[in-house]
Amino acid sequence: MNISRTKLAQVRALMKKRKIDAYIIFNTDPHLGEYIPGHWKIVQWLTGFTGSSAVVIIAKKFAGLWTDSRYFIQAEDQLSGSGFSLMKLNVPTEPTWLEWLRTKMKKRSCIGIDDRIFSVGHLEKLRKTLDKTKIKIDLKCDLITEIWSGRPSMPDSVAFDHSIIFCGKERRDKIREVREEMYRMKIDSHLLTSPADIMWLLNLRGNDLEYSPLILAFALITKNQILLFTDEKKVPLKLASEFDKTDVTILPYDDISLILSRLKKGSFLLLTPETTNASLFDSIPEEVNIVKDISIPTRLKAVKNSVEIDNIRKVMVKDGVALTKFLFWLEKNIGKSTITELSAAEKLLELRLQQSNCIGPSFSTITAFKEHGALVHYSPSTGTNAILSPEGIFLIDSGGQYLDGTTDITRTVALGKPDTAQKFDFTLVLKGLIGLAIAKFPVGTRGFQLDILARKALWANGLNYGHGTGHGVGFFLNVHEGPYSIGTAASEGNQLALVPGLILSDEPAIYREGKYGIRTENLLLVSEDEKNDFGQFLKFETLSLCYIDTSFIEESLLDPFELKWLNNYHSIVYKNISSFLTDEEKKWLKAKTKEI
Amino acid sequence: MNISRTKLAQVRALMKKRKIDAYIIFNTDPHLGEYIPGHWKIVQWLTGFTGSSAVVIIAKKFAGLWTDSRYFIQAEDQLSGSGFSLMKLNVPTEPTWLEWLRTKMKKRSCIGIDDRIFSVGHLEKLRKTLDKTKIKIDLKCDLITEIWSGRPSMPDSVAFDHSIIFCGKERRDKIREVREEMYRMKIDSHLLTSPADIMWLLNLRGNDLEYSPLILAFALITKNQILLFTDEKKVPLKLASEFDKTDVTILPYDDISLILSRLKKGSFLLLTPETTNASLFDSIPEEVNIVKDISIPTRLKAVKNSVEIDNIRKVMVKDGVALTKFLFWLEKNIGKSTITELSAAEKLLELRLQQSNCIGPSFSTITAFKEHGALVHYSPSTGTNAILSPEGIFLIDSGGQYLDGTTDITRTVALGKPDTAQKFDFTLVLKGLIGLAIAKFPVGTRGFQLDILARKALWANGLNYGHGTGHGVGFFLNVHEGPYSIGTAASEGNQLALVPGLILSDEPAIYREGKYGIRTENLLLVSEDEKNDFGQFLKFETLSLCYIDTSFIEESLLDPFELKWLNNYHSIVYKNISSFLTDEEKKWLKAKTKEI
Repeated sequence: MNISRTKLAQVRALMKKRKIDAYIIFNTDPHLGEYIPGHWKIVQWLTGFTGSSAVVIIAKKFAGLWTDSRYFIQAEDQLSGSGFSLMKLNVPTEPTWLEWLRTKMKKRSCIGIDDRIFSVGHLEKLRKTLDKTKIKIDLKCDLITEIWSGRPSMPDSVAFDHSIIFCGKERRDKIREVREEMYRMKIDSHLLTSPADIMWLLNLRGNDLEYSPLILAFALITKNQILLFTDEKKVPLKLASEFDKTDVTILPYDDISLILSRLKKGSFLLLTPETTNASLFDSIPEEVNIVKDISIPTRLKAVKNSVEIDNIRKVMVKDGVALTKFLFWLEKNIGKSTITELSAAEKLLELRLQQSNCIGPSFSTITAFKEHGALVHYSPSTGTNAILSPEGIFLIDSGGQYLDGTTDITRTVALGKPDTAQKFDFTLVLKGLIGLAIAKFPVGTRGFQLDILARKALWANGLNYGHGTGHGVGFFLNVHEGPYSIGTAASEGNQLALVPGLILSDEPAIYREGKYGIRTENLLLVSEDEKNDFGQFLKFETLSLCYIDTSFIEESLLDPFELKWLNNYHSIVYKNISSFLTDEEKKWLKAKTKEI
Repeated sequence: MNISRTKLAQVRALMKKRKIDAYIIFNTDPHLGEYIPGHWKIVQWLTGFTGSSAVVIIAKKFAGLWTDSRYFIQAEDQLSGSGFSLMKLNVPTEPTWLEWLRTKMKKRSCIGIDDRIFSVGHLEKLRKTLDKTKIKIDLKCDLITEIWSGRPSMPDSVAFDHSIIFCGKERRDKIREVREEMYRMKIDSHLLTSPADIMWLLNLRGNDLEYSPLILAFALITKNQILLFTDEKKVPLKLASEFDKTDVTILPYDDISLILSRLKKGSFLLLTPETTNASLFDSIPEEVNIVKDISIPTRLKAVKNSVEIDNIRKVMVKDGVALTKFLFWLEKNIGKSTITELSAAEKLLELRLQQSNCIGPSFSTITAFKEHGALVHYSPSTGTNAILSPEGIFLIDSGGQYLDGTTDITRTVALGKPDTAQKFDFTLVLKGLIGLAIAKFPVGTRGFQLDILARKALWANGLNYGHGTGHGVGFFLNVHEGPYSIGTAASEGNQLALVPGLILSDEPAIYREGKYGIRTENLLLVSEDEKNDFGQFLKFETLSLCYIDTSFIEESLLDPFELKWLNNYHSIVYKNISSFLTDEEKKWLKAKTKEI
């Protein structure tokens, strides 16, 4: 019997005991972040599904896992025989998890959740859905701890100081800036639930998660104090003594609820509902005035300072060298020795790790051959691992965590000779990449206004891609960093006007199901352009440095300004990368970056 | 003494009597629309200011009028000596009217408003601003009626049936569709406060306002009844008997409050806060569940039916003929007889009125010579009226109300030989017009995503315009019709995805203060394009038919596809317009639309 069925039976037995009719599990942790530690990978342990987007509902005669289209094929496969049905998100004929609850739950029944891994926002939605149904919610319902034997313990990496050489601003200056903002917003205390915010504020980094260099912690900033909630053992003495100078006090991780419960009546507390779990929220006294907004460090850290920008420019050279060497190696060895998606990813990581200050990948590397490229969030595994051959299209989306910056870059290369249709697709995607990269726009422009620049050439030909065009990138932090983005929707994040110092990705794409995927991605820096009677204008500067496969381009589709951009970009790439290559590689790159 | 000073003294005397410390007047009427009848032009009567955007605050030692940048120069002039200070909106150094109240009003003082001309939305903002200040608001404070002698009475035009030949859908079908939406939204009754909504629903038109063919009315739709609140005399017997067939009952205009006050407890009422005055809102019992949203007729009427579309196509020919004849007349007579901005506008109206079914202008005609063109909302008056001369740039923004549709078109022509800088500006604006007109986009795209297409060429050269790119246009109704628009902001209106059947304007521009303004405006129809694996795509079809001044174009700035669009457009214009012209005009238009 599938092991998931046994676990499901165990959960159902506990549900019966606790009088729970439906149990909801989100694939997240108490910080509600993108990457979670093994300790909180309940969904994977229970169902076998390894995707990031998942909501599980277990009822007496139903067990379902909701995920989005990126994961349909993978979930179908991984859930097979598990007892869990795949429920498709954003498919009009399928109910959402909220609709399922609203229509399937009986009056006076009881829903169980573990409110430590449930955001305030979701709880509000759930309560609204159940309004007037007399269905109860049991908030403190942990049915997993009891039955998960061998559960990984919480990560215990030790924090380290992120040197001023890299991050460019003392923690006391950042703290002062945050407090100035709190003063301006009339906020007495500020709850930080996102570890990346805390890492940025205190110039800390750690190794608690696979791709994000952080330690799990909460923090509360007041006018006089900063309370850092984390395991004391995670902070070395030397760091702790540095903290003393800036009034940072370390308290046990779980004390956050107690401290919140003691907040002064009538005081103003700023928190972010999307990253605040319902359990923490619940501990705040009713008499505290809660201001819900993007956290101040989230806003401030998105704007990179000049030291960070200088560092990231150097990192781009290193990262470009690694990727260039990888593509050289690939071209020379393809068809000669066995290269798989997994071994290619390993080779690329090996080359990145040879670069100074590189400590690992910034996300799960996507090396996707042929039809795998059409699965937007494909990562090779032993079950899917394809052998590359000198024909077909190969998409590589990867990034590195360096002490001096985080990278994220996608290149798609033709391992054989691309046909006309493939060249057509590749060139349209390239036109989108360039369209956004050369944009000039007035101060006040938001990401959703610029998105079409990356899609226009595709749309004109009846094509499109189903994801956003650009996300923010952290500085030796999360590779997907809010609150700025470039996308089609006017969500809270991209309502903010772009400002100089932001780093955003530019990644148009096209996916031909069952055939191939093409995506080209560079990182862009927002910087100042001219100021005149019509105001201050901004522009992008392309940061990423790796050639774009010209054998894949249908030149006749490019406008003169696009050709000019490409040739200029290639001359910059060669100039920056070549001196770190062997003679053979250099000669090869010269050809790859040759003017067309 | 300036007459406004006398009136101001009278208001202050009444304020003293009523114990009012500050009196707020919005330039609007109980329907909160764009065009208001003389009876409600309080701001103009009191201050002399004739602009549309105005908030007046009168205190003991202060009297101010807030307006936006479109009107700064005009307001400066008209308010001179009036006792009212110009307060500039959206200028960072100047307080908003809310900020002024918050900082200048003493504790326990009292603010007076006439809540019949104050929207629920504004009242909520005012209350929020005054929260915890102990400042009172006197909501029923009409200080004007008593002192305004010779005040115009309410308009008394008689409604007429808008023939099915024009509007294409029986009122009973429209009523059924609205009720279906109410059912879907679980709404028991729907308050309509915007007369245009009511005109559309009941296939009614009238003549209460200068530019919008409507009668002032409120309506309440329930599952079984439609209550129409208007002066009984405004509805002829024949129409009233038609109404009987669709359960429309006519009640006195002022009875709306009474009927609202009797709404059933626990029932659900849909209303639009932006167009519902605070007095009406106040009459709704607390136990009624209020759903705040765009009204259903507002959403439905934006999508034109096939009869309306066929009609508007014919109207575009008539309107194009009128404008073409006007431009011919202008070119032939300029420098020979005296032509002023005002006489030009009169001539254009005369030519429009010669077309079948034209009943008047759809807004105050803008005929702006030279530097007047840089004032976005300039309308010539006897005080500003410029004499045209055969040199300089002339901007004409005008439209007509036809029984079979509403038009809005802008052309800018060079009366002499334009210089290089002027041609540069004109051509960039044209590139914007074309950029939006040729857009192809998937279903789900919102107006704010497309806006940049009209600005890109300007932005790339450090130029911009300070208004939206496109507004909806009514069908023999308001020339500015919500809720769809194309602009930089993601406001409530343009969050809606564009759908086939919408008519939107495309009007990029550039304004050189003190020199000239250039704007080119066509109306676009949203229609279907291809449907494929990537979804259903939409496109625009240009509806307006009038040549674009090619003597103003710098050809080298146009891309081949732009030249192709222009030549194709000109051949369509000639084909549609020429048969309605004299031989001389025809020959002239042939030259104007000659391929370049």
